[in-house]
Amino acid sequence: MKDSSIGIGLLGLGTVGSGVYKLLRENELQISQRTGKRLEIKKILERDQKKAFSLGIPPEVLAENIEEILDDPEVQIVIELLGGIEPGRTYIRQALCQGKHVVTANKDVVAAHGRELFEAAAAGKADFYFEASVGGGIPVIHILKENLAANKIEEVIGIVNGTTNYILTRMSEENVEFSTVLQAAQEAGYAEADPTADIEGDDAARKIAILASIAFNTRVTPANVFAEGITRIAPEDVNYAQELGYVIKLLAIAREHNGEVEVRVHPAFLPQQHPLSAVMGVFNAIYICGNAVGETMFYGKGAGQMPTASAIVGDVMEIVRNLESGSSGRFPCSCYLDKPILPIGHIHTKYYLRLIVKDKPRVMAGIAGVLGDHQVSIASVIQKRTLIVKDETMAEIVLITHKVLEQDMQDALAVLKGLSTVGSVENVIRVEGEPKS
Amino acid sequence: MKDSSIGIGLLGLGTVGSGVYKLLRENELQISQRTGKRLEIKKILERDQKKAFSLGIPPEVLAENIEEILDDPEVQIVIELLGGIEPGRTYIRQALCQGKHVVTANKDVVAAHGRELFEAAAAGKADFYFEASVGGGIPVIHILKENLAANKIEEVIGIVNGTTNYILTRMSEENVEFSTVLQAAQEAGYAEADPTADIEGDDAARKIAILASIAFNTRVTPANVFAEGITRIAPEDVNYAQELGYVIKLLAIAREHNGEVEVRVHPAFLPQQHPLSAVMGVFNAIYICGNAVGETMFYGKGAGQMPTASAIVGDVMEIVRNLESGSSGRFPCSCYLDKPILPIGHIHTKYYLRLIVKDKPRVMAGIAGVLGDHQVSIASVIQKRTLIVKDETMAEIVLITHKVLEQDMQDALAVLKGLSTVGSVENVIRVEGEPKS
Repeated sequence: MKDSSIGIGLLGLGTVGSGVYKLLRENELQISQRTGKRLEIKKILERDQKKAFSLGIPPEVLAENIEEILDDPEVQIVIELLGGIEPGRTYIRQALCQGKHVVTANKDVVAAHGRELFEAAAAGKADFYFEASVGGGIPVIHILKENLAANKIEEVIGIVNGTTNYILTRMSEENVEFSTVLQAAQEAGYAEADPTADIEGDDAARKIAILASIAFNTRVTPANVFAEGITRIAPEDVNYAQELGYVIKLLAIAREHNGEVEVRVHPAFLPQQHPLSAVMGVFNAIYICGNAVGETMFYGKGAGQMPTASAIVGDVMEIVRNLESGSSGRFPCSCYLDKPILPIGHIHTKYYLRLIVKDKPRVMAGIAGVLGDHQVSIASVIQKRTLIVKDETMAEIVLITHKVLEQDMQDALAVLKGLSTVGSVENVIRVEGEPKS
Repeated sequence: MKDSSIGIGLLGLGTVGSGVYKLLRENELQISQRTGKRLEIKKILERDQKKAFSLGIPPEVLAENIEEILDDPEVQIVIELLGGIEPGRTYIRQALCQGKHVVTANKDVVAAHGRELFEAAAAGKADFYFEASVGGGIPVIHILKENLAANKIEEVIGIVNGTTNYILTRMSEENVEFSTVLQAAQEAGYAEADPTADIEGDDAARKIAILASIAFNTRVTPANVFAEGITRIAPEDVNYAQELGYVIKLLAIAREHNGEVEVRVHPAFLPQQHPLSAVMGVFNAIYICGNAVGETMFYGKGAGQMPTASAIVGDVMEIVRNLESGSSGRFPCSCYLDKPILPIGHIHTKYYLRLIVKDKPRVMAGIAGVLGDHQVSIASVIQKRTLIVKDETMAEIVLITHKVLEQDMQDALAVLKGLSTVGSVENVIRVEGEPKS
């Protein structure tokens, strides 16, 4: 029996760790039939003994310290689910260097320290897999690395943060304020007590850094990603989007242009007929364009106990097949190029602008003049309504521009904000995903 | 240089074969960087020399016969793109037995003769890949076999035929007859001159046979698949679907219930909010539910020169990685179980019925009585309009049933058709994809 089993060390028995434990038990038959091996959790690193007890885990399986796992020759695969950078980063590196294969769901570590971990994997001739770090149960990392490998990848656009997609979906369905929905989401468990990393786009930035690194074979870290969150989105913006044929989504975008890589996270107007526009609530999806395959999209639950466990155990099973066929390390680091990252000022997009201006003749001409001075050309203007601000009659104006250089737009906005006729720039949102023709 | 190149034999230089040739040239740099090898087409089997000439292929690359390819020790990978059963089936088997790795897009051969080809692959210790046989550029076979392998797959629902999805999309957008759209589709090149295999559901049946075999680890052949086409769908059905909150799609469905497998292809009412309902035109998508991952969907172009080439070259690149890591044959046949296939009469679904009946008192009571006698319970009835048929005033009635046994429904329909009060049963369409809760 011993020869036919593979020993696993599990670091962390939180939500996802418990899910992995449950999945290995619940689907034990299928997993052993499909791999030809019995997968056995030999050791678990978890301080909270109650968690282990509630899952029926025998106390002797709990490790006192990391060495007990790293030094156990029967542990061939380590699953790291500690979250945050340390001590996960160190444990992963040590395990890989010692020739233990590692699976992690830890996007922070993979995004920021991928290079050193792949170096450790190469040194230890070990496999390093992290499918669960992006898109939960959606196998987007394998798809990009392997299945679409024949393509030059042109574009990756992801809805990769379920919390913000849930908030934007409810804002658009119920026409309510961001803060109201955020609070409801926190009460329902769809948003963290401290939601900063989600709503400011940092979580999505880590994920698109990982996807861009794979898609373009060059290292992209979170520090390279421009990130803007959804806290400024108002019900007015959501309504105008609908009226103009768009939805507002928090998009994580990566593209290559002439050897340069563009990577950014921000809310965007997306045409209602775009495949990503139908992605509602906590679901995630990643839209990928390759020069041969054309448009593709991969959809599923981007978080949660069992979807994440599905990705982790899928990785473990692939490692087992590699062990069986003697091909561990068959998929090394794919970041063998070094492409420049385009500064945010150098990208080109269309913009939606919502301004409150004085309701007087020639105000619009002045605004158009400032935009024109900065090469910002207007595609359409809609004067939406008048309102009284501090006893003065003001007009709300919505503009959509043609594609312009981001830096020109930012320069124009700085001037606009100084105009005496402009009360406020209420919002500026990029427009993405329009048909390419 | 020789050691770093891999020799390929290409059988067939039609649309897809030309696409493979073009893709290997166009993305040569990416492909060689990603695999560490140069992929070289050594020999091509194609009678039409003009095709080769138009692609700039040197005449000496054209093989006179299959032996020239099978006997060439420099050909390590054979790409079969002949279509139909023979001679593709024989060539694939011979190549595999001789230890050459095979990639094919040939769904007919894979669906009907998968078992013998996997036996040949095992005998030759060779890889046998066929990602392009289902869903064109969508990597659904790898996803099912590998990435979602930790799951018990509960359900696979595919829109896997672009021609019929194009026709149904146009019928729903333009409110026109099936025959009108079919003709337009033929003129636009979206439907074959002989469209039978597409519109009667046989093409989709082959594809779902392949997906079901993988999902449930048991051999399913096209002969096991109940198939019904879209030729009876009328504009009235499309309109009633919309009115009731559905769209009509040709669905390829596979499910497992208590160890029994249900596999079928037919048009269905699908709720508008189902992820598959947004799949328009020639696009394909496969919706997969696993017991851990939950709902997922994979979307892209299901046919066409370059999307299909993307899948084929992706398979070739995986074979190259297997060669590099000495792990050829690492993924053997996955049909190691033998599960019974549920006869169509044993499935349970809801139904939409459209009847033309005499517009008289107690007619509806008679119909409800017949349905009730066969355990068919009615969820809702809508009398839609009256019309004159052969000088008689008739009423059009639309019914939606609760979930019932297919056999009961068919028995009830046989009785209904014999009632003097029933002018005609205009259509009977299954209802699928409703929320599980």
